[in-house]
Amino acid sequence: MFLPRKILEEKLQAMLAEDTGQGDITTSLIVPADARAQATVVAKQTGIVAGIEEVNIFLQSLGLEVKASVNDGKKVRPGEVLLRISGDARTLLTAERTLLNLLSRMSGIATATRNLVEKLQKAKVKTKVACTRKTAPGLLYFDKKAVMIGGGDTHRLHLDDMILIKDNHIALAGSVEKAVEKARKHASFSKRIEVEVTKADEVLPAVRAGADVVMLDNFSPKQIQKAMILLKREKYCGKIMVEASGGITAENIMRYASTGVDVISLGEITQSPRALDVSLEIKK
Amino acid sequence: MFLPRKILEEKLQAMLAEDTGQGDITTSLIVPADARAQATVVAKQTGIVAGIEEVNIFLQSLGLEVKASVNDGKKVRPGEVLLRISGDARTLLTAERTLLNLLSRMSGIATATRNLVEKLQKAKVKTKVACTRKTAPGLLYFDKKAVMIGGGDTHRLHLDDMILIKDNHIALAGSVEKAVEKARKHASFSKRIEVEVTKADEVLPAVRAGADVVMLDNFSPKQIQKAMILLKREKYCGKIMVEASGGITAENIMRYASTGVDVISLGEITQSPRALDVSLEIKK
Amino acid sequence: MFLPRKILEEKLQAMLAEDTGQGDITTSLIVPADARAQATVVAKQTGIVAGIEEVNIFLQSLGLEVKASVNDGKKVRPGEVLLRISGDARTLLTAERTLLNLLSRMSGIATATRNLVEKLQKAKVKTKVACTRKTAPGLLYFDKKAVMIGGGDTHRLHLDDMILIKDNHIALAGSVEKAVEKARKHASFSKRIEVEVTKADEVLPAVRAGADVVMLDNFSPKQIQKAMILLKREKYCGKIMVEASGGITAENIMRYASTGVDVISLGEITQSPRALDVSLEIKK
Amino acid sequence: MFLPRKILEEKLQAMLAEDTGQGDITTSLIVPADARAQATVVAKQTGIVAGIEEVNIFLQSLGLEVKASVNDGKKVRPGEVLLRISGDARTLLTAERTLLNLLSRMSGIATATRNLVEKLQKAKVKTKVACTRKTAPGLLYFDKKAVMIGGGDTHRLHLDDMILIKDNHIALAGSVEKAVEKARKHASFSKRIEVEVTKADEVLPAVRAGADVVMLDNFSPKQIQKAMILLKREKYCGKIMVEASGGITAENIMRYASTGVDVISLGEITQSPRALDVSLEIKK
Amino acid sequence: MFLPRKILEEKLQAMLAEDTGQGDITTSLIVPADARAQATVVAKQTGIVAGIEEVNIFLQSLGLEVKASVNDGKKVRPGEVLLRISGDARTLLTAERTLLNLLSRMSGIATATRNLVEKLQKAKVKTKVACTRKTAPGLLYFDKKAVMIGGGDTHRLHLDDMILIKDNHIALAGSVEKAVEKARKHASFSKRIEVEVTKADEVLPAVRAGADVVMLDNFSPKQIQKAMILLKREKYCGKIMVEASGGITAENIMRYASTGVDVISLGEITQSPRALDVSLEIKK
Amino acid sequence: MFLPRKILEEKLQAMLAEDTGQGDITTSLIVPADARAQATVVAKQTGIVAGIEEVNIFLQSLGLEVKASVNDGKKVRPGEVLLRISGDARTLLTAERTLLNLLSRMSGIATATRNLVEKLQKAKVKTKVACTRKTAPGLLYFDKKAVMIGGGDTHRLHLDDMILIKDNHIALAGSVEKAVEKARKHASFSKRIEVEVTKADEVLPAVRAGADVVMLDNFSPKQIQKAMILLKREKYCGKIMVEASGGITAENIMRYASTGVDVISLGEITQSPRALDVSLEIKK
Repeated sequence: MFLPRKILEEKLQAMLAEDTGQGDITTSLIVPADARAQATVVAKQTGIVAGIEEVNIFLQSLGLEVKASVNDGKKVRPGEVLLRISGDARTLLTAERTLLNLLSRMSGIATATRNLVEKLQKAKVKTKVACTRKTAPGLLYFDKKAVMIGGGDTHRLHLDDMILIKDNHIALAGSVEKAVEKARKHASFSKRIEVEVTKADEVLPAVRAGADVVMLDNFSPKQIQKAMILLKREKYCGKIMVEASGGITAENIMRYASTGVDVISLGEITQSPRALDVSLEIKK
Repeated sequence: MFLPRKILEEKLQAMLAEDTGQGDITTSLIVPADARAQATVVAKQTGIVAGIEEVNIFLQSLGLEVKASVNDGKKVRPGEVLLRISGDARTLLTAERTLLNLLSRMSGIATATRNLVEKLQKAKVKTKVACTRKTAPGLLYFDKKAVMIGGGDTHRLHLDDMILIKDNHIALAGSVEKAVEKARKHASFSKRIEVEVTKADEVLPAVRAGADVVMLDNFSPKQIQKAMILLKREKYCGKIMVEASGGITAENIMRYASTGVDVISLGEITQSPRALDVSLEIKK
Repeated sequence: MFLPRKILEEKLQAMLAEDTGQGDITTSLIVPADARAQATVVAKQTGIVAGIEEVNIFLQSLGLEVKASVNDGKKVRPGEVLLRISGDARTLLTAERTLLNLLSRMSGIATATRNLVEKLQKAKVKTKVACTRKTAPGLLYFDKKAVMIGGGDTHRLHLDDMILIKDNHIALAGSVEKAVEKARKHASFSKRIEVEVTKADEVLPAVRAGADVVMLDNFSPKQIQKAMILLKREKYCGKIMVEASGGITAENIMRYASTGVDVISLGEITQSPRALDVSLEIKK
Repeated sequence: MFLPRKILEEKLQAMLAEDTGQGDITTSLIVPADARAQATVVAKQTGIVAGIEEVNIFLQSLGLEVKASVNDGKKVRPGEVLLRISGDARTLLTAERTLLNLLSRMSGIATATRNLVEKLQKAKVKTKVACTRKTAPGLLYFDKKAVMIGGGDTHRLHLDDMILIKDNHIALAGSVEKAVEKARKHASFSKRIEVEVTKADEVLPAVRAGADVVMLDNFSPKQIQKAMILLKREKYCGKIMVEASGGITAENIMRYASTGVDVISLGEITQSPRALDVSLEIKK
Repeated sequence: MFLPRKILEEKLQAMLAEDTGQGDITTSLIVPADARAQATVVAKQTGIVAGIEEVNIFLQSLGLEVKASVNDGKKVRPGEVLLRISGDARTLLTAERTLLNLLSRMSGIATATRNLVEKLQKAKVKTKVACTRKTAPGLLYFDKKAVMIGGGDTHRLHLDDMILIKDNHIALAGSVEKAVEKARKHASFSKRIEVEVTKADEVLPAVRAGADVVMLDNFSPKQIQKAMILLKREKYCGKIMVEASGGITAENIMRYASTGVDVISLGEITQSPRALDVSLEIKK
Repeated sequence: MFLPRKILEEKLQAMLAEDTGQGDITTSLIVPADARAQATVVAKQTGIVAGIEEVNIFLQSLGLEVKASVNDGKKVRPGEVLLRISGDARTLLTAERTLLNLLSRMSGIATATRNLVEKLQKAKVKTKVACTRKTAPGLLYFDKKAVMIGGGDTHRLHLDDMILIKDNHIALAGSVEKAVEKARKHASFSKRIEVEVTKADEVLPAVRAGADVVMLDNFSPKQIQKAMILLKREKYCGKIMVEASGGITAENIMRYASTGVDVISLGEITQSPRALDVSLEIKK
């Protein structure tokens, strides 16, 4: 997920413009046009920091000097300095909230992701933790990037990415087999095909029809285990991947992971993350 | 916060375009070009629904027919139908995730807001619950609108709105008095002036210098109480407003509210809301 | 009204792009690609200069070097140099008209504003001169900024700013009281509420219902005086503000100002300003 | 200057969005979501109306019904109804100022243009009245269109239009002859070539080098007359066109026109037009 | 590659706006504002038509009525009517060139693709014909869509799609193995991994390191054959896919196809396609 | 066709953004964030290079250093280095395809144009070679610029440029005379008027009605010759220009040129150009 700086700048400026309206009237009334300021951005909580690269680009594009003290992905503690910024005081104050909002959201997502990833690593489980497309609308890039920094799998980045046949597609196609067959026949060789199944007896048909990945949606850990046994018996292990999804949370994730699925995906890490508390302090 | 439909459409299409990339390849491979579908959007949790108006405009602008079963602000229960949609099946499937992401975020914010508002109403406290500018970057309009639907106060909508003199402004101006005086002299008559104070002994200077609102930042309930007594003694009650902010959560809000402040603001309702679970079901 | 440089750049480039079309064909045919030029921007009339900051940012963003000889708000005389520019000759010639158009419009507005402000200052009247939302469409920021530079009050910057209840709102609400009451109850604490009244007997109801500002629309100076006496008698002086609007021009403004209203607003300073004559001269 | 409706819509929505900010808060607090309204747009002054087509498209794109009572170019009198509008009351109120700003600016330009055109027509002079590129920045299309409606000549629409060699180009090229020669040699056959001359002795060199049009810049009527005699003597009449520009106003235009030049151009009709007073009245 | 109509409209309007500038002056001078017209779009050459859906959406969004006589992908002959259009004459004439440019480019690409696809089908070869990212800049969607309509494989739609490790990546990583290993370890499970090899002895290392697809770049048919034998011997057949690329044209494609590779990709079908000749004829 | 750098940058970034999607995942997985690289862009075929200026601006705007070894318009041979680039390796790899696509398309158009121009120059014919508006949609600027670099005439740049009355306009106006008369009367003095005629007997009416240029559409060389004789006889030579268009190709162009027309226009140079083969090679 490497975006050239110029493309990111445009997304970031749009965020600032929205917040600014016709201009920061408080700052223009109180802070002289030639005032300069120095500031630090400081963590107020323990967590995984994400968004350092984006904030860096954002502030530099505004003509401010930035020095990052930490890299994306680092675990930070309360009081730890993340960035040192200096330059035009008015610009700094006007940009403050936008930069903090971005940093705290991305860090919140990275923190939630890392917690799950470490839980699985400690249990020596190889299952990957993935996010879904349940992001804040308009923030797809930033939310996915934060998951990646947290050590998670970004899953599809777009609807034009992997082919993912869901229940609603199957309903409209008539059957799992028909849906997979259609995809298989006309899809680009460059795409994986994943099929979401909601019942145990759809697993083998999906795989036989040619799915590269099968997603067990809203299966209990026990139901997943049965499906895994079935797939092993039919010699599909190592040939296809299995993803578990639906109803999985930080609390119950270990029970799903222990089934040996390849991927576990959770909507909540991008849909309901707790922001990491960070603040900006001016040192005149 | 009334935005003409056309302006909203543009914001909503940008969200969809981001998610779509070069197009929904799964849908185009599996669903025939002339297929039509009917769907319902259903709540999976109890909460306050918000975003119905926006989703309505979004889907209509895509050529789909929509019938809302509930209005924004209504409390819904699991299984309750929110919207009935019909029209081109491919369009419906491509738009599904964007509409659900918007609806679940806005409803999550409205739900969090309403919970706090009702808590205060039950205790017969007149204090308003306000959000801050700690929104998801780029989603200012939607987050603020959701707070309004939840019954909260939207606070500043932009940096060009009310004048809000914060610690960093005061630091750069030299003193509270100097900062307020500057603002008072040159600000448009159309703006309120609010001053954020971090120490008890800044309260009276701020008010005397001409603040319309004083924000007690990170004051404990006890400290707030003292400030309120001071203001009453100096006959400022009814003339200025007091806002409490910083460190206030759903857990401790009552202790702040009981001090009699006019407004309590919380970052978490827009920064860390839990999404309300909603889903879309196709009925062929 | 402080906008970070990057946000302004985008607005200014859009103006240039509109004027340029597929490119400046005259310049590309006649001026060599590596030619450099020096130029001065000179005032041809006496007036208040405005737009220096914007033009500075505009030219620098195009890679030209600029040195401003005057600051925004200064009174300039015919022949006075405003800016010295040097750099790529083609860029300079292509940008010439856009920069002059901006500078002459903003300076024209600032000049008209300053004339009124000084008239009132000489008469030792404290009334503020304000503009309205009658700007050139799309030039809201620049027109308001020019008024501010001229010493005027910018009034509302957006429809999301102060609440301003006009005759059409009152007509739809049923009565002044109902309209103000609705606003009072649900408006954010951060907004002032102004009510436009068109008849003398609406003044007190508006104020009693809770207006922070009352706008006397199309009142004659005599009618305004009566309203002021009424408000004084009812002890509203110092508590609410009074704005006079409608039919006020540079000619009759003193008669309105002498009534003691707090604010006088005129559409003409932004809607029909005479451009200040400025020109650019190349020194090879 | 025919622009398909969709392209105009986008320009017009951008104007509305700028004025609206995060939404019309007054209207949303006071006017019910389902209220409908009827309104008329009425002239308050005598003048030539322009912008009816644009306002029509603007309002229709917002879902309002519009009926124009007059066409662009018609002379209207105080009290005359220009448009009847009906539909969603909130949308109507939010769009009111944008539509009036556009209509009053365009009508002001058309009125100023028509006054000059009629002056010349009455004197049976065939000289055309043209505008320049001195428009409000960003409003090129609307300002030029208004001139056309007023009966004026739109002159260059872009820098990529006709080739117009000005003093600064000549300065950089070395001489009039060199500049025209370069243009002649490499310019597309589809473009006219105009040369701006500031001294009498540049007229013949410009024409001999191949100019299609010669612009006499800041020539007095007497100087123009001499140049016209010269051109006649050299048999250039009917082969090339002559434009007079610089220092021409509504007051002195007849003296310039009587010289027999083909075109007279004035910056003031687009740069300093008086807006035509129009207003919108709600009839519930 | 299904894009909702609204998203396509925006791309198509941008094309029209570019061509239109400040408006179609010929049409506005000659065609009355209320003139209506009927037109047919006719093929002038034999080929595969593509772009019917896009043109349909384009014209409808401009308020014109369209009836397509053929579907995308159909082989058309000279004189065959593709579309019948009716509506506002000015709009139709202004949009004419944009629609023809789109239709003739997309049809040209589809025709070139289909020719190759049919060549292979006749020879009963199962190899897929794919395009590359060598499209006209800015026309990625339209060029890829046309390839799909021609029966070709769209290959990567974005740089965020499949992972494709090219020579330059390998050069920077140190070796094929290192590059693939890095990708394997951190890539999302949802992506295929393809490796471009330029020498025969890189094939097995790439596959052993975990490539899903191996691209033989600039291999001669003989070299490809050797590589295929190697892969069969090592039992990789059916497990990985092989793509041949570089130097392949319509003339020599059969020699490459006969090697049994899975995919053949050619830059020329999107980079140097001959436009299909189509024209629009007005029937008043 | 001189566009200031900033305006070009925006067009070029849009091309890159389209290709990049949510980011270059291959590069971000394999190339370290701090890797730097050096590269050369090399011609693989003989041709006229075009786009050097645009690519230069594109790469510099991304923060890369570029040194052009050749200027636009130069004939290059296989193996010749066009550009040397150095800087951030990730940015370079992500931008590679976009820069090559632009360069190879523009150079292909310039090469095709130059071939025709030189053919005519060798035959000592003064006829100009012009392109049409048959460009790739959205690439008008780049295609026209490439024609100019190749030595061709850019013809109309927009629909707001020269007035060009085509068959469909004449059909709607009633006759050639009526159409030209309308244009003559109301057109700006700054525009040439060209009339497209499809039959020999329309030539004189068009010219008599006041056309500056007459386009003979789909005339055979013999028919053109007759028309030229007619025009000479009627003394229109040297007063008007003649353009031949329709059915002209690189093969038959000399037969058209020998008729003595002023301009020959061909759609194929912008509609079906063969891309010039160029490639980028990393030198670590």
